[in-house]
Amino acid sequence: MDFDLARQLAVENDTKIVLLVADGIGGLPHPETGRTELEAAYTPNLDRLAADSLCGFTVPVAPGVTPGSGPGHLALFGYDPLKYTVGRGALEAAGIDFDLRPGDVAARGNFCTVDGSGVVTDRRAGRISSERCGELCEELRAVRLDGAEVFVEPLREHRFLLVLRGNGLSEAVADTDPQREDRAPLAVRATARQGQATAKLVGKFVTEAEKRLADKTPANMLLLRGFARRPNWPSMQSVFRLRAAAVAHYPMYRGLARLVGMTALPAGPAIEDSLAALREDWGGFDYFFVHYKATDTAGEDGDFERKMEAIEQLDRAVPSLLALEPDVLMVAGDHSTPAVMAAHSWHPVPFLMRAKWSRADECGAFNERELLKGTLGTFPAVEALPLALAHAGRLRKYGA
Amino acid sequence: MDFDLARQLAVENDTKIVLLVADGIGGLPHPETGRTELEAAYTPNLDRLAADSLCGFTVPVAPGVTPGSGPGHLALFGYDPLKYTVGRGALEAAGIDFDLRPGDVAARGNFCTVDGSGVVTDRRAGRISSERCGELCEELRAVRLDGAEVFVEPLREHRFLLVLRGNGLSEAVADTDPQREDRAPLAVRATARQGQATAKLVGKFVTEAEKRLADKTPANMLLLRGFARRPNWPSMQSVFRLRAAAVAHYPMYRGLARLVGMTALPAGPAIEDSLAALREDWGGFDYFFVHYKATDTAGEDGDFERKMEAIEQLDRAVPSLLALEPDVLMVAGDHSTPAVMAAHSWHPVPFLMRAKWSRADECGAFNERELLKGTLGTFPAVEALPLALAHAGRLRKYGA
Repeated sequence: MDFDLARQLAVENDTKIVLLVADGIGGLPHPETGRTELEAAYTPNLDRLAADSLCGFTVPVAPGVTPGSGPGHLALFGYDPLKYTVGRGALEAAGIDFDLRPGDVAARGNFCTVDGSGVVTDRRAGRISSERCGELCEELRAVRLDGAEVFVEPLREHRFLLVLRGNGLSEAVADTDPQREDRAPLAVRATARQGQATAKLVGKFVTEAEKRLADKTPANMLLLRGFARRPNWPSMQSVFRLRAAAVAHYPMYRGLARLVGMTALPAGPAIEDSLAALREDWGGFDYFFVHYKATDTAGEDGDFERKMEAIEQLDRAVPSLLALEPDVLMVAGDHSTPAVMAAHSWHPVPFLMRAKWSRADECGAFNERELLKGTLGTFPAVEALPLALAHAGRLRKYGA
Repeated sequence: MDFDLARQLAVENDTKIVLLVADGIGGLPHPETGRTELEAAYTPNLDRLAADSLCGFTVPVAPGVTPGSGPGHLALFGYDPLKYTVGRGALEAAGIDFDLRPGDVAARGNFCTVDGSGVVTDRRAGRISSERCGELCEELRAVRLDGAEVFVEPLREHRFLLVLRGNGLSEAVADTDPQREDRAPLAVRATARQGQATAKLVGKFVTEAEKRLADKTPANMLLLRGFARRPNWPSMQSVFRLRAAAVAHYPMYRGLARLVGMTALPAGPAIEDSLAALREDWGGFDYFFVHYKATDTAGEDGDFERKMEAIEQLDRAVPSLLALEPDVLMVAGDHSTPAVMAAHSWHPVPFLMRAKWSRADECGAFNERELLKGTLGTFPAVEALPLALAHAGRLRKYGA
């Protein structure tokens, strides 16, 4: 829904909407059984829910497009993922709870290995340990620049976050990562006139860093990419009139939720932790995004059995979720992660919405085969939120 | 379909297209039976028609959006209701054949009842008779304003039309209707700078009208809403090459049809009257919009039984409609009006199209459950007309 239209139609009331995202929930048939993870798992609670819900499939970004976690979630939050894009640097910052401020510029860094003539021989510096990465970041933090404060934060293994803070900084700086080996890192350059001063600062940083890393083989050089600022998006409150909260354990999802104005509530890794957090703050918000990671992790690992178990674990949590009596409950995924592919995929994602004023359909279980009978069909994920608002009585009539 | 594309592709021929709009036709399950109005009604003719048609559901405006009658119809006429918007005032003017001119500003008025302290106790003044309304309008016509001519025209019961004619008038004036009782009418104010002068004139009108109505209890005050100018839209003839006619008894639908260039044919309130009008002018037009109101009225009244009866009445008229042998017949709705909600709703709307060159589907009846099996799926209502044109052989091939 266009944001101007949403602002025109959305009204507040005292209903509660819950979006439960089972990350990577959609699957593909196991070659031996012909059954998907959802079809193979024992899910009496989800099945009963499906029989009592509007059912269908979401298309996260566009047909055939495999989404990253960012676009997959943004769509479910009602933000068109082709319009609301976030640069890699800003997403990494959000993901580690780094307080990226409006004027800051962030980039994703890799430690890498270069040979004597400066050519990259390993873009990941032999995947050094996260601990070693921390030590190297400490070293780089000592670099001083005229006119910008420097932050260097370790991520996993060879990855780190670089943030410059100062006046008049710009994200119009090209990647230095050549994206392949057997080449030298690219020179730092601006992609537009307004990036020239920032490119100069970044160039200075790289030169200084190179000196400090010279004897740190295999991590004797660095590559930068995805220069970005914190996006300045309208909040869910301002567009949809929702006081929204995120119940997510993993930093990236908390960060993403904050970018659309959600309050990130503290939550442990288990689904029970999430439900406890939900109960705790039930009175304080209109909309809750609950993130469940285990389905995706198992899918990415190509572990069909473990993905089934993660689904069954989720299923057991459904009754306590229903006990909260949300006015609208969505069970959704940000994308499919079929265990047989061991990766995110473009396949439409199982979806259900339980709410008042629902039409009946013939859908008797929550899986890829049964959901085909659902009344929602296959629809863009970005339409899920407007539909939830309608069922919660939160959209005014359009036109006379 | 984009209008430029339509102009490029549309051709004339001697086919006849009929759009039968059963207003508010879509429903929701009755809590006791689990069956919708269409499922519960006895509709042998519509069911036979569905078995022989392309079936599906239309989304009038956008997912989750509950349309007013204007947008719901415009979409079926092929006009994007998010682009072609018309204010209530202009719609009411069109509905009574009032010659609204380019500079005029129109508003919909209600006579209402206020108590001694000016608080609205009945927004509809006890639904005074249309005759009484006419007398009161006569009274208000005597109000004189400096710089604008005043027109006050009675509509049905407590409703009337106010039109100001003069130089530099603007529609940027806020509603005075508080949309609920137990509140005073809202003060007249501009919604933008350019509306200030007009708001002043309207304020003067309200003050004068209040004096004249003081002793006319229950109609001792008035409420205004939907200040609007006449929209200037391309006609169906110019875009789709259709000589189009409307067979509608209720003024608003006739008015709406005229805004897209249809000729409004006279018709009585019953479906038989509409069919008689259709037969009468069958030779004179390519496209006929036939409006059936009873389904919506019963739905809005929350009367499940009466909506069923209205559906059954419509069903009995189907054979004489088919006897005219239209090349394309659509049975559609402008929106759903589930009796259990007693209001318009956002739910996709039952739709069928009977035409040559149709694919078969498994849809054996015209109701919310069976139509899920239809070949059209759930699609934007604005696509119905291009589809009808195609089936009537009225669209050229696109591209070489």
